[in-house]
Amino acid sequence: MSLGEFDLIEKYFSRKSKRSDVLLGIGDDAAVLSVPERYSLVAATDTLVEGRHFLPGAAPESVGHRALAVNLSDLAAMGAEPAWALLALSLPEADETWLAGFVRGLLALADRFGVDLVGGDTVRGPLVITVQIMGLVPQGKELRRSTARPGDRLFVSGWPGESAAGLALLQESDVPKADPLMERFLFPEPRLDLGNLLREHATSAMDVSDGLLGDLAKLCLASGVAASIDLERLPYSKELRRRYATEQAQDFVLRGGDDYELLFTLPPDDTNQRLIGQLCAICPVTEIGRIEAGRGVRCLRSGRPVETPGRGYDHFA
Amino acid sequence: MSLGEFDLIEKYFSRKSKRSDVLLGIGDDAAVLSVPERYSLVAATDTLVEGRHFLPGAAPESVGHRALAVNLSDLAAMGAEPAWALLALSLPEADETWLAGFVRGLLALADRFGVDLVGGDTVRGPLVITVQIMGLVPQGKELRRSTARPGDRLFVSGWPGESAAGLALLQESDVPKADPLMERFLFPEPRLDLGNLLREHATSAMDVSDGLLGDLAKLCLASGVAASIDLERLPYSKELRRRYATEQAQDFVLRGGDDYELLFTLPPDDTNQRLIGQLCAICPVTEIGRIEAGRGVRCLRSGRPVETPGRGYDHFA
Repeated sequence: MSLGEFDLIEKYFSRKSKRSDVLLGIGDDAAVLSVPERYSLVAATDTLVEGRHFLPGAAPESVGHRALAVNLSDLAAMGAEPAWALLALSLPEADETWLAGFVRGLLALADRFGVDLVGGDTVRGPLVITVQIMGLVPQGKELRRSTARPGDRLFVSGWPGESAAGLALLQESDVPKADPLMERFLFPEPRLDLGNLLREHATSAMDVSDGLLGDLAKLCLASGVAASIDLERLPYSKELRRRYATEQAQDFVLRGGDDYELLFTLPPDDTNQRLIGQLCAICPVTEIGRIEAGRGVRCLRSGRPVETPGRGYDHFA
Repeated sequence: MSLGEFDLIEKYFSRKSKRSDVLLGIGDDAAVLSVPERYSLVAATDTLVEGRHFLPGAAPESVGHRALAVNLSDLAAMGAEPAWALLALSLPEADETWLAGFVRGLLALADRFGVDLVGGDTVRGPLVITVQIMGLVPQGKELRRSTARPGDRLFVSGWPGESAAGLALLQESDVPKADPLMERFLFPEPRLDLGNLLREHATSAMDVSDGLLGDLAKLCLASGVAASIDLERLPYSKELRRRYATEQAQDFVLRGGDDYELLFTLPPDDTNQRLIGQLCAICPVTEIGRIEAGRGVRCLRSGRPVETPGRGYDHFA
């Protein structure tokens, strides 16, 4: 079934705006938005390509959810609150069933976090989805990846590795059944509430999209510091422990992509215990190591350096 | 030649920011930007797909220029001043020569209009380019397509149809030589200065990307009005006149896409002559008809309705 381009946008993406700061939404050449005084605008974009970021034939609800979630995760890492999104959708054909599912997945997540879809572009082409997200942060309060300091305590949220394990399961099975690991890949949860609380406390943050080790290396490079990870302290989810031998599970935790957990640092201050309790009330957080002077990332076992596995996922590697 | 993803972004897109309102540019999870008080944020996105929006094997400088130009044209139509852009680039391979040309074309145009590239995403996939543009407009001053009123005078800027003719020539010839019509397709000029001046005067505006007739129909629909075009008043460029019979030239002018001219309306006030002189000092503008009560677009010849040709380009038609 085929629809005209303009009908597509009209039919699926035009909803009455829910935010009073949307002065002009979908339907004109551009959206017009109101940024409140004493706030900075935070903007990022991420692209999903079929066969690379999601499996061919993936459920459209999952594709829509992930297209927005990976962008929301960037805002979480900055400690920003999401506000508006633009959607650029290249589609091989105007398949109404697919589109309806895609929009359902995307808008369900948008609604949960108060995001308005304010514009976009729909073109015919290979299945490539780009979302551009805009959010707000109090002036001067954004979290950065370049501000970790030697001595800082290093944390990761949630259960890194589950998503990569879920993708491996999806690739193995022809007819995937509902499975908690697969769900983690298909419907990642952006850590916005955590980022919001961290804004006043963390010395640095970034999201884990390409694997914990590789992303930590980027944080270290940006901050001009080194980091040590205590392998014994890595968090292993029940599902990872139950299904995989230690070595495989550790590989997922250290190298698996698509986690959308937050990596962050706190000052070396023991009075942080109350804060850590507050953070854990939002989602699990685990102290996995520390920031040091120098360069690069070391893994320690029983306090002694061990060889570091690979460094995450590179689209052009 | 192949480069790692992170090197790509690092090598080609990281420049020192030229704008003081870029608080944090490329290199973190998101950009942090400062919107001045009493201004609204204006945001739009457009996607180019190889083989649909540009010819396979097109010069990378042209692809880079067009990816930004089509977005700048959206800001021109709103009367907004461009500020920042994000680039989402899906590339089949990390071809350094191609990338260098693409970036050269994009940044040359960005520099001319004071736009900073503040972030992006580079992924492996089919050649699909999405730019998201952000600009600024004094609060409440944006131009809209929904505000034309019966009685308004209808204008178009520049030389619509040249770009479509240029594309036709490009498709005919194997080794295109420099040609003014082809140049119009390959390097369209966003009408930002015109939009800027129109902001205080026009009753409505939109850009012409899918053909004059079709886009005028959208303006009428959004404004709840009708429009008449006097076919005798359509502007024909010298090149169009020289190369094409009247009927073919008219078809290009009315239906050709990719013009990125502005369609706009002025109040029915004869004191506008001085303004029109100011507008023409920026670029040619031609009065082609008027806004009326009712619905739809009529074409008149010698004041009498004639059958209207098709309605522009629809990606899913």
